[in-house]
Amino acid sequence: MSEFIWPVRVYYEDTDNGGVVYYANYLKFMERARTEWLRSFGIEQDQLIAHEQVIFAVRSVKLDYLKPAKFNDLLQVSAQIIKCGGASIIFEQGISRDGEILCQAEIKIASLDAITLMPRPIPDVVKTILVEEKE
Amino acid sequence: MSEFIWPVRVYYEDTDNGGVVYYANYLKFMERARTEWLRSFGIEQDQLIAHEQVIFAVRSVKLDYLKPAKFNDLLQVSAQIIKCGGASIIFEQGISRDGEILCQAEIKIASLDAITLMPRPIPDVVKTILVEEKE
Amino acid sequence: MSEFIWPVRVYYEDTDNGGVVYYANYLKFMERARTEWLRSFGIEQDQLIAHEQVIFAVRSVKLDYLKPAKFNDLLQVSAQIIKCGGASIIFEQGISRDGEILCQAEIKIASLDAITLMPRPIPDVVKTILVEEKE
Amino acid sequence: MSEFIWPVRVYYEDTDNGGVVYYANYLKFMERARTEWLRSFGIEQDQLIAHEQVIFAVRSVKLDYLKPAKFNDLLQVSAQIIKCGGASIIFEQGISRDGEILCQAEIKIASLDAITLMPRPIPDVVKTILVEEKE
Repeated sequence: MSEFIWPVRVYYEDTDNGGVVYYANYLKFMERARTEWLRSFGIEQDQLIAHEQVIFAVRSVKLDYLKPAKFNDLLQVSAQIIKCGGASIIFEQGISRDGEILCQAEIKIASLDAITLMPRPIPDVVKTILVEEKE
Repeated sequence: MSEFIWPVRVYYEDTDNGGVVYYANYLKFMERARTEWLRSFGIEQDQLIAHEQVIFAVRSVKLDYLKPAKFNDLLQVSAQIIKCGGASIIFEQGISRDGEILCQAEIKIASLDAITLMPRPIPDVVKTILVEEKE
Repeated sequence: MSEFIWPVRVYYEDTDNGGVVYYANYLKFMERARTEWLRSFGIEQDQLIAHEQVIFAVRSVKLDYLKPAKFNDLLQVSAQIIKCGGASIIFEQGISRDGEILCQAEIKIASLDAITLMPRPIPDVVKTILVEEKE
Repeated sequence: MSEFIWPVRVYYEDTDNGGVVYYANYLKFMERARTEWLRSFGIEQDQLIAHEQVIFAVRSVKLDYLKPAKFNDLLQVSAQIIKCGGASIIFEQGISRDGEILCQAEIKIASLDAITLMPRPIPDVVKTILVEEKE
């Protein structure tokens, strides 16, 4: 499947006293990229909740910090699906700056019922994209 | 009315690249103090939503930054009601370190219907506190 | 002076349990707009720190919350200078969605020495923009 | 080694539109517990930077989200060292509510020179604790 890239600028809000991006905030950047990847196929998550009663939740995260991002950096955040089950998706994501990789992650997402928060099959409208992406 | 004080420790998450607490984060500290002030009277906001269908929302903020708070500081955050209407409350709040005031604010809160988000009278259980506090 | 507009998308990270943007996070959006306004004139804040030894800090904030922004909203954040002194700038900022104003603010910025954190004149490279903007 | 427990209250700032704690924020709670664990031995990180020129940085994170934490929850955040090398420490951390585990993590920390950000041996003052804890 092809790789999606979303640009993210580092602002003061993202940094900490150590002069670098605070370690939890890379997860914000990665979620922005996953959201924009879905949007690039015309899928809006507020519509998924309203019309399909589906919400995506993160089940697990593996994250390696290789080099720090700094204030004012322009980062490239990638999102690529590496596995897709009935009610879960595994993303491989990376954050880089000028071609240098700063951070790598594997993030498992579950498809849940927006009300009961129990597992619920990935909606067809999303499934279709995943199949097309694979071909 | 008496002044309520809530201690807040500054962690990395609160600071920015300038080596000080990020300017928006003082508002988080102030909300913690308002929440704990309510809790000190036995009022839990999740219960207010569930049983009184009331949610508190911030309507306006006036904030003066006098001196910066730094990583690892132990701060004292105050909350004091200075005015109370039918569906709104005005708090005067301050943040200090070792008796030195760092930040001062006046924060106006509205009482809203948790579903329609329209103004709704302050619940009696809260009103009672405000009256007792005044006496 | 002319008004600068910066688009901001609302992600999960920006929202709270009330289903709306958390009240402190509007200040993050406003700082992004001020940063991008400076960048639109070719001024990078990390360069200002390194070459001019100047850092900008917020001195005061007045903020009115009119209507809430929600998850997935695409917002327009404005930044306009309304006053400029020797070592301070006052911005008028607004956040709107589809032409409807959600939030308005007046934000006073101080120009500080990046090391001593004492007031320091606004660097000429920034002053020049402010004068041109006025004309 | 013994397990350290730090209580964390969930405020609005920690939650998102899904009605639960935002997935990146559990990492903030875990860092608070690591910081307080160090402080329980009399070690202040700002002193480590100033006197030992050492800063701790996160190298990797493995995180499993089992159940969501909600607004107003009182959580218990644990921190326990499971491995300690010359310039790195591995923590096992958990977040629970009323004895029910919500989130589990393994977090690898590196000891770095506060200026060059290159690996630097864990300071003796910290090493001593780790050895005593093991016995």
